[in-house]
Amino acid sequence: MQHILEGNRRWVESRLAEDPEYFHKLSQGQKPRYLFIGCSDSRVPGSAITGTKPGEMFTHRNIANLVVPTDMNMLSVLQYAVEVLKVEVILVVGHYGCGGVAAAASNKQHGLIDSWLTNIRDVIRLHETELLRIHDEDQRLRRLVELNVMEQVRNLAKTNIIQNARTKPNPPQLHGLVYDISEGILHDLEVDTRDLDEFSHIYSTISKPAAPLDPQVQAEVQQQLQQQHSKGKKQEAAQATEQNEAKQTA
Amino acid sequence: MQHILEGNRRWVESRLAEDPEYFHKLSQGQKPRYLFIGCSDSRVPGSAITGTKPGEMFTHRNIANLVVPTDMNMLSVLQYAVEVLKVEVILVVGHYGCGGVAAAASNKQHGLIDSWLTNIRDVIRLHETELLRIHDEDQRLRRLVELNVMEQVRNLAKTNIIQNARTKPNPPQLHGLVYDISEGILHDLEVDTRDLDEFSHIYSTISKPAAPLDPQVQAEVQQQLQQQHSKGKKQEAAQATEQNEAKQTA
Amino acid sequence: MQHILEGNRRWVESRLAEDPEYFHKLSQGQKPRYLFIGCSDSRVPGSAITGTKPGEMFTHRNIANLVVPTDMNMLSVLQYAVEVLKVEVILVVGHYGCGGVAAAASNKQHGLIDSWLTNIRDVIRLHETELLRIHDEDQRLRRLVELNVMEQVRNLAKTNIIQNARTKPNPPQLHGLVYDISEGILHDLEVDTRDLDEFSHIYSTISKPAAPLDPQVQAEVQQQLQQQHSKGKKQEAAQATEQNEAKQTA
Amino acid sequence: MQHILEGNRRWVESRLAEDPEYFHKLSQGQKPRYLFIGCSDSRVPGSAITGTKPGEMFTHRNIANLVVPTDMNMLSVLQYAVEVLKVEVILVVGHYGCGGVAAAASNKQHGLIDSWLTNIRDVIRLHETELLRIHDEDQRLRRLVELNVMEQVRNLAKTNIIQNARTKPNPPQLHGLVYDISEGILHDLEVDTRDLDEFSHIYSTISKPAAPLDPQVQAEVQQQLQQQHSKGKKQEAAQATEQNEAKQTA
Repeated sequence: MQHILEGNRRWVESRLAEDPEYFHKLSQGQKPRYLFIGCSDSRVPGSAITGTKPGEMFTHRNIANLVVPTDMNMLSVLQYAVEVLKVEVILVVGHYGCGGVAAAASNKQHGLIDSWLTNIRDVIRLHETELLRIHDEDQRLRRLVELNVMEQVRNLAKTNIIQNARTKPNPPQLHGLVYDISEGILHDLEVDTRDLDEFSHIYSTISKPAAPLDPQVQAEVQQQLQQQHSKGKKQEAAQATEQNEAKQTA
Repeated sequence: MQHILEGNRRWVESRLAEDPEYFHKLSQGQKPRYLFIGCSDSRVPGSAITGTKPGEMFTHRNIANLVVPTDMNMLSVLQYAVEVLKVEVILVVGHYGCGGVAAAASNKQHGLIDSWLTNIRDVIRLHETELLRIHDEDQRLRRLVELNVMEQVRNLAKTNIIQNARTKPNPPQLHGLVYDISEGILHDLEVDTRDLDEFSHIYSTISKPAAPLDPQVQAEVQQQLQQQHSKGKKQEAAQATEQNEAKQTA
Repeated sequence: MQHILEGNRRWVESRLAEDPEYFHKLSQGQKPRYLFIGCSDSRVPGSAITGTKPGEMFTHRNIANLVVPTDMNMLSVLQYAVEVLKVEVILVVGHYGCGGVAAAASNKQHGLIDSWLTNIRDVIRLHETELLRIHDEDQRLRRLVELNVMEQVRNLAKTNIIQNARTKPNPPQLHGLVYDISEGILHDLEVDTRDLDEFSHIYSTISKPAAPLDPQVQAEVQQQLQQQHSKGKKQEAAQATEQNEAKQTA
Repeated sequence: MQHILEGNRRWVESRLAEDPEYFHKLSQGQKPRYLFIGCSDSRVPGSAITGTKPGEMFTHRNIANLVVPTDMNMLSVLQYAVEVLKVEVILVVGHYGCGGVAAAASNKQHGLIDSWLTNIRDVIRLHETELLRIHDEDQRLRRLVELNVMEQVRNLAKTNIIQNARTKPNPPQLHGLVYDISEGILHDLEVDTRDLDEFSHIYSTISKPAAPLDPQVQAEVQQQLQQQHSKGKKQEAAQATEQNEAKQTA
């Protein structure tokens, strides 16, 4: 504890040396532009790695930066950040070497946290084919870290908090990033609107699709939906089928 | 309230008429064989529709009979039922005409419950291709009710509570059923061990797969995993590819 | 499982014997008047013990009939019941001999469920003086079962779902009951509006008390608040004030 | 986003300027000594205000630094920090001027977050008498911030994670602190073991108190328990006992 209190006093001195009004200004209230959703890992302090100052970044940190749609803890942060503070940008930030992701990818028990990690196992299930294609285990874990971030950004887009904000002017932008601890660099995964809208016909709680079509048109629409609904899956499917056919003709 | 208290008194009389020792016996403690996880819907009272008596069925009921792996409410019921009461059979019971499932399949907002229903939308995403093939909307919703039950049974198998019980003698059996309100019949979906084990290489928290293989063998194993991992997906994939090829050659 | 399916078939036959249209009518939809929040205990099937029929009682059952204000599972049931189904009466039903309550009152570990039971320990803390006055352990546990129900009814009144419903016509009535397994009788605890409003100055999310008063008036108001705020604490409060006055005049 | 990425690049440069091996060392794994549970408020970045470096402080941040015993998000952080990382010190850090605390102390609705804030209202209920004695509203809110931190530290002590850790060598120390934004200073609330053990007879899941005493001794013990159990309540308890005695002798 002494270590903490001394560290605090030193920090106060260095702030005041830079700006005697520093704390007085801060105490006037917060108007953060960012909501940072990151991992609890001690090596990923949000404001440090983004070079933002106290007052700029509203923060939620949990194991493996998960956005669980029924989690009242995270939802409360999100609702307050979006509806009360009106943040402009939401960052979901994962990091390579994440212990939670590695634990989820193992077949071991870690106690109560196993329940929480099930959410990452669900990400593995959704993207199993892509992950299976990666032979190197380190590379596969790195890809899982990225896919986990992308699915958590999607989980944000599933909430009615974000969906409602999008019906109003200046909704918050959603971004997925991965932090590389070994070099300190933040990488933008460029999860764009198209990625987020890929499943919006399923998750939207707002716009009702038009009235039922006649069967002929509906069949065509369904076919198109099937084709567009997963960029990845189509290719995998084609390859899997090729493989199957190769085997069967062999 | 008066209605409730009078109904209670009538019920007590009818029980005592059948067996004067009825309540005395019950008060000796419970030793239920079943855990029933069912919907809150007023038309699906677990003990009535299964013809079981007070004392036979430990019960959890929520909207759309969901098993959410991070839900402390359900997990507490499950842990107590499995580890303390040592139930023999766990039934996840859905029902056609489920308002929660219908709400999840619509693109409308229903308030706070939207978060809860996201879990059903995740089921839609996982099984979208199968659902899209069903043109009739009623039939599609009925299939979604079934798929939802199957995924909730799988969610049970994801928990370390069930996984640990399976390392011991007489683990609880897991069953998925659908109740047809229009005729009163309970249908067994026959979710068998194979279905549950389909993703056990992902969700198991217990057995560690063997040491890394050499690249050649690993490639073969991966190919086999890909082939076995989804009975459904393979066919869909084949069809989607056929369709694509048909289009491309057209 | 065979036992369950056979029990179901017998039940269907008995229903149809009484009314051939029974299931057809039920399948037209539900319009339940009651929301039942009860214990998972196998001996407390809600519709049986209240003599209500399928279609009358929307139901949530968990360990020890708890209403945890951050529990998305229960909140989803509550919101749907109140805002969509517009139930007229909400019953929180505990029962003497509750294993969950007994577990919470012991100093033993029961696994993951310990977290859930902390809510009951909070009830013990709130009412410790009353409980300590009861020498007989069985009587003390019975009183704890009752106090637990009363606090869960209060927890309902803490939600903005109930608070909002009360600003509209015909809000649902809240009732706390205890079921006595040894005789089958449901007892109304008569938690009345006064009990619920005891802490409404703390928990209300709606009416803002008037602007700050001048110090003199405020002191008087605070004194009055102190006096009215708790039947139990009233005496204590009065004494404390006397003491203060004694001190100040001393 | 550009702002974030540029801030990150500047931070990397400054780190590398100080120590070219900085990131390489960090990437070897984390061995944090501290778990920081703090508010999401943008002005309270844990590592900055404590002067700790990346790698030293495992972090969970949510609205109003709450420790909710059924919250799987926080519990997963806690279990991982205590059982896997074996942190030495756990800090619950509140701050004066907390928007969440102010919102809970108001009688206004803020949306979904109202559920979360109910936990703070429970703190108000527990300490209402003390709060009512404080006439100045700012001072009352400051005291509520402190009481909230103290109750959250107690909530940690209610978990079986902490209770189990305490049966082993070198359990984590629990500390409650308040950060004063207006001057940058962290204040130690000195929540000591005595505070934490005040209710351990209720919350302990481990040691079973001795066998039932004879009624005479039990009565005496109860009286003593009543007297010792709460510093605040002590006076009230004594008075109540006097009253009882007065009555009994009357």
